[in-house]
Amino acid sequence: MSQSLTERRVLASELSTHVGQTVTLSGWLLNRRALGGVMFLVLRDRSGTAQVVVDADLAPVLQELQVESVLSITGEVIADARARGGAELHARQIEVLAAVTEPLPFEINKPVLKPSIDIWLDRASLSLRHASKQAASRVMAQLAASFRGALTRRGFVEIFTPKIVGSATEGGANVFPVTYFDRPAYLAQSPQLYKQMMVGVHERVFEIGPVFRAEPHATTRHLNEYISLDLEFGFINDHRDVMALVEELLREMMTELAANCREEVELFGATIPEVGTIPIVGFREAQEIILREFGEDCRHEPDLSPQHERWLGEWAMREHGSDFLFVEGYPTEKRPFYTMPGRVDPEVSNSFDLLFRGLELITGGQREHRYDRLVEVMERRGVDPAPFEGYLDAFRFGMPPEGGCAFGLERFVAQVLGVANIREVTAFPRDINRLAP
Amino acid sequence: MSQSLTERRVLASELSTHVGQTVTLSGWLLNRRALGGVMFLVLRDRSGTAQVVVDADLAPVLQELQVESVLSITGEVIADARARGGAELHARQIEVLAAVTEPLPFEINKPVLKPSIDIWLDRASLSLRHASKQAASRVMAQLAASFRGALTRRGFVEIFTPKIVGSATEGGANVFPVTYFDRPAYLAQSPQLYKQMMVGVHERVFEIGPVFRAEPHATTRHLNEYISLDLEFGFINDHRDVMALVEELLREMMTELAANCREEVELFGATIPEVGTIPIVGFREAQEIILREFGEDCRHEPDLSPQHERWLGEWAMREHGSDFLFVEGYPTEKRPFYTMPGRVDPEVSNSFDLLFRGLELITGGQREHRYDRLVEVMERRGVDPAPFEGYLDAFRFGMPPEGGCAFGLERFVAQVLGVANIREVTAFPRDINRLAP
Repeated sequence: MSQSLTERRVLASELSTHVGQTVTLSGWLLNRRALGGVMFLVLRDRSGTAQVVVDADLAPVLQELQVESVLSITGEVIADARARGGAELHARQIEVLAAVTEPLPFEINKPVLKPSIDIWLDRASLSLRHASKQAASRVMAQLAASFRGALTRRGFVEIFTPKIVGSATEGGANVFPVTYFDRPAYLAQSPQLYKQMMVGVHERVFEIGPVFRAEPHATTRHLNEYISLDLEFGFINDHRDVMALVEELLREMMTELAANCREEVELFGATIPEVGTIPIVGFREAQEIILREFGEDCRHEPDLSPQHERWLGEWAMREHGSDFLFVEGYPTEKRPFYTMPGRVDPEVSNSFDLLFRGLELITGGQREHRYDRLVEVMERRGVDPAPFEGYLDAFRFGMPPEGGCAFGLERFVAQVLGVANIREVTAFPRDINRLAP
Repeated sequence: MSQSLTERRVLASELSTHVGQTVTLSGWLLNRRALGGVMFLVLRDRSGTAQVVVDADLAPVLQELQVESVLSITGEVIADARARGGAELHARQIEVLAAVTEPLPFEINKPVLKPSIDIWLDRASLSLRHASKQAASRVMAQLAASFRGALTRRGFVEIFTPKIVGSATEGGANVFPVTYFDRPAYLAQSPQLYKQMMVGVHERVFEIGPVFRAEPHATTRHLNEYISLDLEFGFINDHRDVMALVEELLREMMTELAANCREEVELFGATIPEVGTIPIVGFREAQEIILREFGEDCRHEPDLSPQHERWLGEWAMREHGSDFLFVEGYPTEKRPFYTMPGRVDPEVSNSFDLLFRGLELITGGQREHRYDRLVEVMERRGVDPAPFEGYLDAFRFGMPPEGGCAFGLERFVAQVLGVANIREVTAFPRDINRLAP
């Protein structure tokens, strides 16, 4: 790479390895304070922060500048035990790469972003520079990278499936309509059908991409556009193989998060969960636990409510010391048409949810791979097969027993960091009220 | 992982390491032929193919089955120099995991897919299993992985930016409208503005995600939805730093492609390009070359046509032995408003295109990072600043000199493989006529 990027410039985190040398630091002015005739700056770059000492003769350059101005400062590196990283830069020359003259609408160099969430979401270009937002965004990147890495090591192939689809296949409601030239189209709610089709091609596939849900509610757990981590693979026995993979995957993801993002997680006062053997309870058993331990009888309900999931999360921690809990065997009728019914009792499906700290994080299961049965269940449920012809081909022309699952990336980040509102960890959230920036 | 996935089953490519053992192969029936009383099968799994010998007593199981049926075959591994990989499986037991009984609409076990492209695109679940389509899809995954890897090693952070946007920011035409609850919205034509905003956060960012272009033409080089490989980074001198990074990136991508996908590329009779020092010509110089070498005077045109690009590609190969050619310094007025004008001549922009084998593959350049200038150029071009407020904040609050570029992933795959029609390497292409499957 050219000199400007790797040679002339030194990163804040490397400063202490250049003691006695003349180097250039470049970054954003995070903070400054005057002490006697000397000014102390904190400069932020992508590696962290460094302290810069500016003598009185150079200080006038900084007079008019607000924090977040971009500076390139050349000087000598001096060892100083009081400075972060054990060294500081004594400025000889300051070049102003971008002068910020307008006062900032809120402070971003304090531990907590003070204004209300809507104000800082409106000013995302600024608020995302806050240490906590930067950290959340790095955690997000790390989780995505670990997911890919773990699957690639197991022979999974990354796929890219279309986000504009010709029909609202997975449940007609909750889709965003798109005007596609002169035709109606929709935004894909998930890559579900495509990833299943691709199992016939590569056996094991994954995708990381946006999905779109036109759910008109505004909760702290939902976004109308989010990043879905999807995987699907063939030659399984049943959903337990998917759960076994999920457990391994989570273990590797958390191990890599601890290795690469410990500081980011600690900034939130959060702890990275241990992934031991994840306990498994059946759906009916989960309802019995709720009755027994929390006194609510939900045994006739076909699904778990968010409160039920929170209770189960509490129970999993208390009983098993686990942040995670698998619930398997949801009623077949409440799951999508492609769900594999259980062998023993077809009303109990080969499906599961993974609860993480009492919140549903992953939904998955074995899929119906038998062409005749798939057509039959679609008929029984009144699903028009016409828009599914391309999907049905995958089963008509030979599909092994297969299954998979999906997680929402933003929700995972929020739960790992212990953040209640998913918008706090999403750079540019989309919800019923928010389309900008 | 559970026993079913890694222990009991052996992959086709591993067969020769199990000579003398009893193992199970699982996969799709790719081919079969009867010879005397014996039947020879070719079974396909994610690792490749293997030969299976079936004696007369087991053959009736296969009688009714079409190719693409999914089988799990247990037997003894016998060394045989004539078999691919040096070993074959002598079947003892055949389990039919999925019986295909309907005749296939076209053959997928021959070197070339015979039917016309529209027929096999309609039957994507089947045609994508063809060796060439599988290969293209693996090349696509490899290029994406190498792009990520090369950038991650350089401290770039992966970002995820929204695909539903509140205004048609980058050029009002050619956007797909979305009905977002009760409001109009659009599909993002690129992550351009968001990735620039994120330079203020992480300095160096990249994104791999879908982009949407409502261009109503149907060419062999365009899709209406494609995967864009985007990168953007700060603290550059000018566009030449972006070009230097592109050169390194391409070199690493091609090296890894050669290491991991040589067979896939050879299946297309293509060769992986060498990335040496990529020649650079100025835009005006390129027009002079076209006049001198190909006899067409295009010196008064503000852009290069596809034919001009093909000629320049020919010239780069003839003159420099290079599959790649940078053209820099496009007229500022023809580039988007955020393009940085040149220091010497502001009518010549700090922008570039990279031609690969005579086709534009990458567009990039330095961006205008000076807030006042950015506002000025928007005013001059009649761009309403209101929907850009969130974007302008990034510059109002301190942005270093920065730049970046974008490639279309499907186009890159098509050019590497020497495929004329981009749809041939896209699993589920979207164009003006095609929305399914």
